[in-house]
Amino acid sequence: MSSVRDYIRTIPDFPHEGIMFRDVTTLFADARGFRMAVDQLVQPFSGVRFDKVVGLEARGFILGGAVAHQLSAGFVPVRKKGKLPGAVISESYTLEYGTAEVELHDDAISAGERILLVDDLLATGGTAEAGIKLIERLGGEVIGCAFVIDLPDLGGRKRLEDLGMNVQALCAYEGD
Amino acid sequence: MSSVRDYIRTIPDFPHEGIMFRDVTTLFADARGFRMAVDQLVQPFSGVRFDKVVGLEARGFILGGAVAHQLSAGFVPVRKKGKLPGAVISESYTLEYGTAEVELHDDAISAGERILLVDDLLATGGTAEAGIKLIERLGGEVIGCAFVIDLPDLGGRKRLEDLGMNVQALCAYEGD
Repeated sequence: MSSVRDYIRTIPDFPHEGIMFRDVTTLFADARGFRMAVDQLVQPFSGVRFDKVVGLEARGFILGGAVAHQLSAGFVPVRKKGKLPGAVISESYTLEYGTAEVELHDDAISAGERILLVDDLLATGGTAEAGIKLIERLGGEVIGCAFVIDLPDLGGRKRLEDLGMNVQALCAYEGD
Repeated sequence: MSSVRDYIRTIPDFPHEGIMFRDVTTLFADARGFRMAVDQLVQPFSGVRFDKVVGLEARGFILGGAVAHQLSAGFVPVRKKGKLPGAVISESYTLEYGTAEVELHDDAISAGERILLVDDLLATGGTAEAGIKLIERLGGEVIGCAFVIDLPDLGGRKRLEDLGMNVQALCAYEGD
């Protein structure tokens, strides 16, 4: 298999009817696929220095851990409410029904640090935007946002680009 | 700072009173600390071939992603119930009050594959044992279990060693 997309499987009706779930676990489970994904995620930022990779819970942790290792950077998690043990700052974002909150340790990023935001999937961009706000509140500079999958119909790429972000994705599924 | 332990901070009374929570996020956030942890986790298995790294949700994803990348292996998540989109097998384990369940995609590991299990913390070993059972039910061979922190008073190391496991940890906190 020669592209990241070949390793991604689609599971219909998860987590509920009508959703075509793009499952990256088959990509991550394959040694060649996982390495290809990590290599391609960092490739657009070749020669750029990053202090830290921020990964969004939970699949962004898998990818973010590997990307941080590849870049010789630190890794910082953005987690769902109540999971981080230290003092946090939080941001809420809108879900299909209601809102959710994500948190960041208030000492996890220092002013001026250069950050790469990583997640598996860019859909509406709500979680990513909340992550960006958290990073920027601590004075971090989000140099790039890297995703495996972009669902452009859901508007996340435009939303993040409107914030001035450099958005990279390895593949896109339209009509989702 | 010269050892992994120097980067770990302790947060008293999280998630509830009387618990000294060992927080690895400060280790992961530091580029040197994170690399040291990954290097030391794989060091006891130098020269050993692994097909896949299995990480336990959620902090095991961060570390497991980086370790899989370092070993040029695939990464497979063991997740809490209901999170994996495909067909799963599950195992329950005992918590302080009640039980919980973890799941593994039923096609994530093939018979004979050589597995390294990774998590941040070894406490009672309940989740790790459930993960081992899941891997073995698919015919995988758990060659090693690697943790950043061991809390030996809670008996996890003995429990996994009684299963015949090769258990490695980078540091231990006694009296917890």
